[in-house]
Amino acid sequence: MTKEDNRRKFLDVFPSLVNQLTHALRQYGIPNDAIDWYEKSLLYNTPGGKLNRGLSVVDTYVILKGFSSPSELPDEEYHKIALLGWCVELLQAYFLVADDMMDKSITRRGQPCWYRLDEVGDMAINDAFMLEAAIYCLLKANFRNESYYVNLLEVLHDVTFQTEVGQLLDLMTAPETMVDLSKFSLERHSYIVIFKTAYYSFYLPVALAMYGAGVNDERDFLQAKEVLLPLGEYFQIQDDYLDCFGSPEEIGKIGTDIQDNKCSWVINAALKLCSPEQRKILDQNYGRKDDECEKKCKQVFYDLKLDKVYEKYEVQVAQKLREKIEQIDESRGFKREVLYAFLDKVYKRKK
Amino acid sequence: MTKEDNRRKFLDVFPSLVNQLTHALRQYGIPNDAIDWYEKSLLYNTPGGKLNRGLSVVDTYVILKGFSSPSELPDEEYHKIALLGWCVELLQAYFLVADDMMDKSITRRGQPCWYRLDEVGDMAINDAFMLEAAIYCLLKANFRNESYYVNLLEVLHDVTFQTEVGQLLDLMTAPETMVDLSKFSLERHSYIVIFKTAYYSFYLPVALAMYGAGVNDERDFLQAKEVLLPLGEYFQIQDDYLDCFGSPEEIGKIGTDIQDNKCSWVINAALKLCSPEQRKILDQNYGRKDDECEKKCKQVFYDLKLDKVYEKYEVQVAQKLREKIEQIDESRGFKREVLYAFLDKVYKRKK
Repeated sequence: MTKEDNRRKFLDVFPSLVNQLTHALRQYGIPNDAIDWYEKSLLYNTPGGKLNRGLSVVDTYVILKGFSSPSELPDEEYHKIALLGWCVELLQAYFLVADDMMDKSITRRGQPCWYRLDEVGDMAINDAFMLEAAIYCLLKANFRNESYYVNLLEVLHDVTFQTEVGQLLDLMTAPETMVDLSKFSLERHSYIVIFKTAYYSFYLPVALAMYGAGVNDERDFLQAKEVLLPLGEYFQIQDDYLDCFGSPEEIGKIGTDIQDNKCSWVINAALKLCSPEQRKILDQNYGRKDDECEKKCKQVFYDLKLDKVYEKYEVQVAQKLREKIEQIDESRGFKREVLYAFLDKVYKRKK
Repeated sequence: MTKEDNRRKFLDVFPSLVNQLTHALRQYGIPNDAIDWYEKSLLYNTPGGKLNRGLSVVDTYVILKGFSSPSELPDEEYHKIALLGWCVELLQAYFLVADDMMDKSITRRGQPCWYRLDEVGDMAINDAFMLEAAIYCLLKANFRNESYYVNLLEVLHDVTFQTEVGQLLDLMTAPETMVDLSKFSLERHSYIVIFKTAYYSFYLPVALAMYGAGVNDERDFLQAKEVLLPLGEYFQIQDDYLDCFGSPEEIGKIGTDIQDNKCSWVINAALKLCSPEQRKILDQNYGRKDDECEKKCKQVFYDLKLDKVYEKYEVQVAQKLREKIEQIDESRGFKREVLYAFLDKVYKRKK
């Protein structure tokens, strides 16, 4: 099964979930115009991304169950685990609709951000809420008789809270309006990315697949978390690095972190290594919507050889993660292969 | 125990819940400035209202358990049921922080809306999310060993979704920017208020108290719902009526529903009864930020004798509800008194 087949098969499940959700509203007697609105929001905001998080729920489940491809799963079994994958995508949709409003973003996934549509505006806040609510509606309809139903609810609640805390930290550290690099630090960056990104993008998909596959010893969740959180941190550091040092052709977009005053790994690494003179340049030029200012910051980053610093970090962190994965205890059903699959997707990726 | 003692006792529980929540974040290793922010948001947005919803969880529990006052409950038992009461208040806080943004409101409970504070702004969206997350964090820490834990989660999920659907319906029917009375109708109004208000304000507190008290037969939830949803609708119709016909001294505020283009019971009753000439006046004057326009609408409402229409409705609906309550089957532990207590608080209230 090619990567594209895999994605297609996963996407094919989504319409049936939209059906379940609109059916639930119809049962309540809700007027059609509101149901149509909800359907539109679900379709606009949920698929359309790379679907890595949702797909990794399926991929992890396949590995844990000893299959070699999603195509080997009976239809019903595939549908059920794909539903958990879509819960991660819905959770992400909920975050992104709101993040775009808070960041005043213009586009997302090649289309205008939802809140930017004329008929939507601030209603997007309530639409975000309803994307989250979809998760619990779907789980109730499809998992309430499973012994691990309450575990699914709890891990989703926990990770939602953790992600929101990460978003809060990020917003407090790098407010859109005020540049203050004294708030930044590599330690702060680490907190932000672990909470804002790693929990929901790396730990959550694996935890959901583990419950689905019956691999549910507390110690195994711990083993997973101890690799997936640093791996998620590495992924975000890489993302930050590529935003600044990747070529637009490679990464498929033009980086804007410098002008957007982002608390990125790059600026934090620079702050740690820079001279007082370089610090002055950064204080005066970071986070300004001005190409000249951006250039001056980039020059400092190059002078500090942050590309080399990154390359060294990447090799080291990958090495450390491999060692950790080697030590995984597989006796209760968890598998190293799950973690290698994640690491391989991240290591030395260029986009 | 006076009403004020009751309220005080309930309020006294809140700081310990804030402690539990900040403790949870401290366990995660979250930096203090983010914890302080969360604490500030919890304190600013959660208490400060009338607390009717939270208090009614405690009151309902007291009735179901056969006590005659909350003061008779052992401390630990009181604390636990009050926590469920605070979950309803947190849910409301979550909705109100977001509703104020969507409605562009200026003040709430006598202070500026949270999003209007200089340092908050759009971050209020994430703060709203975190008020909701508090609910599940508290339930996990305090109820996870109860047999009805999953029921609490489900009823909260369901009611959250229902309220959000109600908010969607309201926003679609009466958008802030465009006046179009052809979208209004009494039927539409009924959907909006049952979903947006009645589920979380009337049904949810009783359902939570029922689980806590071990009164958990499906049929009893149905009995409760069949009275509490129409009672919640009546409450909101009364609210709408008072906004237009109540004196500012009585209701403690100046009504703004007409100028705000609200899909209120008053305008919907008027649309049903008005002549083509009166309809024209309403089309031209409703929902404009202009005192003269407001006066013209009010004149139509008086000409249609909507105050009399309301008075008749109130007597009739209270009569119907009393009949329904009389027929309640108490054999499995549910009690009529729970519903009478609610009806008595609503019937002929003036503020």
